[in-house]
Amino acid sequence: MADILTHFDEDGRAQMVDISAKQQSQRVAIAQGRISMSGDAFSKITSGRVKKGDVISIAELAGIMAAKRTSDLIPLCHPLMLNKVQVKITPAQDEPVLIIQSTVKISGQTGVEMEALTAVSIAALTIYDMVKAIDKSMIIGPIKLVHKSGGKSGDFNNDDEIEAI
Amino acid sequence: MADILTHFDEDGRAQMVDISAKQQSQRVAIAQGRISMSGDAFSKITSGRVKKGDVISIAELAGIMAAKRTSDLIPLCHPLMLNKVQVKITPAQDEPVLIIQSTVKISGQTGVEMEALTAVSIAALTIYDMVKAIDKSMIIGPIKLVHKSGGKSGDFNNDDEIEAI
Amino acid sequence: MADILTHFDEDGRAQMVDISAKQQSQRVAIAQGRISMSGDAFSKITSGRVKKGDVISIAELAGIMAAKRTSDLIPLCHPLMLNKVQVKITPAQDEPVLIIQSTVKISGQTGVEMEALTAVSIAALTIYDMVKAIDKSMIIGPIKLVHKSGGKSGDFNNDDEIEAI
Amino acid sequence: MADILTHFDEDGRAQMVDISAKQQSQRVAIAQGRISMSGDAFSKITSGRVKKGDVISIAELAGIMAAKRTSDLIPLCHPLMLNKVQVKITPAQDEPVLIIQSTVKISGQTGVEMEALTAVSIAALTIYDMVKAIDKSMIIGPIKLVHKSGGKSGDFNNDDEIEAI
Amino acid sequence: MADILTHFDEDGRAQMVDISAKQQSQRVAIAQGRISMSGDAFSKITSGRVKKGDVISIAELAGIMAAKRTSDLIPLCHPLMLNKVQVKITPAQDEPVLIIQSTVKISGQTGVEMEALTAVSIAALTIYDMVKAIDKSMIIGPIKLVHKSGGKSGDFNNDDEIEAI
Amino acid sequence: MADILTHFDEDGRAQMVDISAKQQSQRVAIAQGRISMSGDAFSKITSGRVKKGDVISIAELAGIMAAKRTSDLIPLCHPLMLNKVQVKITPAQDEPVLIIQSTVKISGQTGVEMEALTAVSIAALTIYDMVKAIDKSMIIGPIKLVHKSGGKSGDFNNDDEIEAI
Repeated sequence: MADILTHFDEDGRAQMVDISAKQQSQRVAIAQGRISMSGDAFSKITSGRVKKGDVISIAELAGIMAAKRTSDLIPLCHPLMLNKVQVKITPAQDEPVLIIQSTVKISGQTGVEMEALTAVSIAALTIYDMVKAIDKSMIIGPIKLVHKSGGKSGDFNNDDEIEAI
Repeated sequence: MADILTHFDEDGRAQMVDISAKQQSQRVAIAQGRISMSGDAFSKITSGRVKKGDVISIAELAGIMAAKRTSDLIPLCHPLMLNKVQVKITPAQDEPVLIIQSTVKISGQTGVEMEALTAVSIAALTIYDMVKAIDKSMIIGPIKLVHKSGGKSGDFNNDDEIEAI
Repeated sequence: MADILTHFDEDGRAQMVDISAKQQSQRVAIAQGRISMSGDAFSKITSGRVKKGDVISIAELAGIMAAKRTSDLIPLCHPLMLNKVQVKITPAQDEPVLIIQSTVKISGQTGVEMEALTAVSIAALTIYDMVKAIDKSMIIGPIKLVHKSGGKSGDFNNDDEIEAI
Repeated sequence: MADILTHFDEDGRAQMVDISAKQQSQRVAIAQGRISMSGDAFSKITSGRVKKGDVISIAELAGIMAAKRTSDLIPLCHPLMLNKVQVKITPAQDEPVLIIQSTVKISGQTGVEMEALTAVSIAALTIYDMVKAIDKSMIIGPIKLVHKSGGKSGDFNNDDEIEAI
Repeated sequence: MADILTHFDEDGRAQMVDISAKQQSQRVAIAQGRISMSGDAFSKITSGRVKKGDVISIAELAGIMAAKRTSDLIPLCHPLMLNKVQVKITPAQDEPVLIIQSTVKISGQTGVEMEALTAVSIAALTIYDMVKAIDKSMIIGPIKLVHKSGGKSGDFNNDDEIEAI
Repeated sequence: MADILTHFDEDGRAQMVDISAKQQSQRVAIAQGRISMSGDAFSKITSGRVKKGDVISIAELAGIMAAKRTSDLIPLCHPLMLNKVQVKITPAQDEPVLIIQSTVKISGQTGVEMEALTAVSIAALTIYDMVKAIDKSMIIGPIKLVHKSGGKSGDFNNDDEIEAI
């Protein structure tokens, strides 16, 4: 198993894996997630009546900031110098759902999938926090990786899973 | 809207709401989430061949630690002195799915829903991190609050949503 | 001197002072600051053309989040459970200046002046960061405490220093 | 506006800007600030009677440590591997004022102005914290960038603003 | 075993233990440690020629700051609002050794042994960092708890282990 | 002294030293430490009866995570992008002692001795935390650097100090 689950050494002990020998390359990861809520909550958030500090832009910002904290949160993630983080949240067309998409870039020796997924997760939690006074039954997820490029393992695309935003 | 979305003042400006007047009470929150994966990945994690540092216990620990960081991550959350944090991850009975459940307690003036949801989210991301070398298509979610008690707003139960663990 | 600069013990050694014997009380601190910029930069920020993620609301949010990190940043500050943090940024009437005001509340054994001043400082730095591409000569300050209440030392008011916002 | 305030994308959404295409270069930033206080407070700090843990060296250290936390505090700042951070605090010649100067260096793809300004700001706040028991009316600021070199935008000098230290 | 190692539940799963039912009380912990070095390194540090920023006061400050971060570092520690943290470092009488002692106080539901031990450990590491250019063979330890009071388990004293400082 | 204790400038002021001119190289550091306890505590930890979340693997994980936080904790340490962190804890053969060893790698301009020593220290503290309910007299240390390679100062080996693990 150790040869497959790379975060464990030959004795089954967790480790932050050695990336010394990996090539520096341009790497990109895109993740997506959703948060579903009541129609009432949804219309409150998206009605556009809030000029400043609106729910969506706060959640986008929280997602960006969280991407930078990924290695503090995920035990075996490497600390990384991210080149770009973007989080976009858009209302779905015909459901009371917000779609969250993050894009993270780095020029480095390991990928940024976890940073992209963390950004989406914390953005979703931030929405939950601000809306929970009117809807505690919101559902976070599905959250998934939709694209990854760069690095030896090649590109990953989960295209049929990408929602238009 | 300001009277409903309490994180915004009368001008629509975000704020960390004033909890000075709220009663100190025993508060509990329970959240649940899932991460779905391929049968191959699932059997690797749950086969019990890894003695130390196994995926599930690392993810449980990461969830506990993340609960303590909630106010650093969610912009308008209050810093809180948590009394208890527990994260339990169990394999589902008949699907390649791990079910994650967190329980957070506090004696304080505001609830711990966000701490419980953050614990579940980071535990799920930690599983993703350790398993992504063999399955990048894992799905995180749905994540939801299943129980909340304490405080003026009374109990919240999402019972039909609770999975047996 | 040690009896006056309370952060130093009788040997002149820095310490986080013992607040065990201090009374729990409702405490409030209000701080104010300014950031001055070119007319060009000022009109860009305040023109209202940016719908989402505008400079002012991001800076307000950064100030709130920074208040929660005060004890990580200021070496001898006590970790505190803040009850409320609010940051308001308003354009001055007749100068290219943004006025930043924070209000922090706690029910505790020590005051929150540092949290209020930290919120203002980080909000100002966040504005600088977002505007520096068009104006590197911005001036941060003066930043000052304008009000403090609660605790044994009584109220402090710097009223003639308060700017209308 | 998006083309000018680079932290916002074409939709006015905040982002951590993509620095992938920027050149690696040696970059330096120098910032300066002041904190003004009563003559009584000033003479207490600068009288040299405190052997260990004196106010000035604690504030210098807090400034250095804060520079390393800049990307945690300023929402859209990139995480950076700083090569050098220095903070010098000196009493002004003929006023009860401390002058704070920071110098930050990096070999990287983006500048360190924010790190230099953050170091000065937190150093000033740390002085405030330690002296506030005897003077709550201290004034922090003006704080400004005095020099920047490296990177495509070329050198910036605010020479007439530099105080001799 | 679960009934003894309280950080594990009945299934052997790690948890942050529930302290809801524990009494609030005044609690104190004192820890001590040593760092041994070459006579050359020792005389450099203790010669008193460094006016500002000397090794000992920086290490004391680092220890104080680390005590506040304990719950971020030790996975199952509760976040706590410390009432006092003091770190004293003194040269031993007749060996090239620095003795480090911390005192931490809280009024709370759980003890502060870990905060005291963390303060000593980080203070020792900070000394190592500043002196390693002239001595890489320094030895950190023994580090131990010397006193604990408050709480149901009663007082703990390791008196014969306390070094005079 | 300033020419020897490099963390101080010519005025004796603490600084994060300038590493701009240092060569990028592969650097490795290995540190070791011990924690001694009662035979009773030792047998509880090493008896292998705890399936999940056992003391040793939690402490290993805490050590790995702490290595990533080193520059937050040690005031003059540079922030670094670590390539590898591994922590191994093994019971000693004939004493009630756990031996902790960390290995840290980087490709960078400064060494990772402090990261290795911090990993060992926090791992030891984590063991103390989980075992203190049954033994408060545990002793942490000696902790020391056993190997360092890379960089201009050449290799350092403390071979006779290395314990077999």
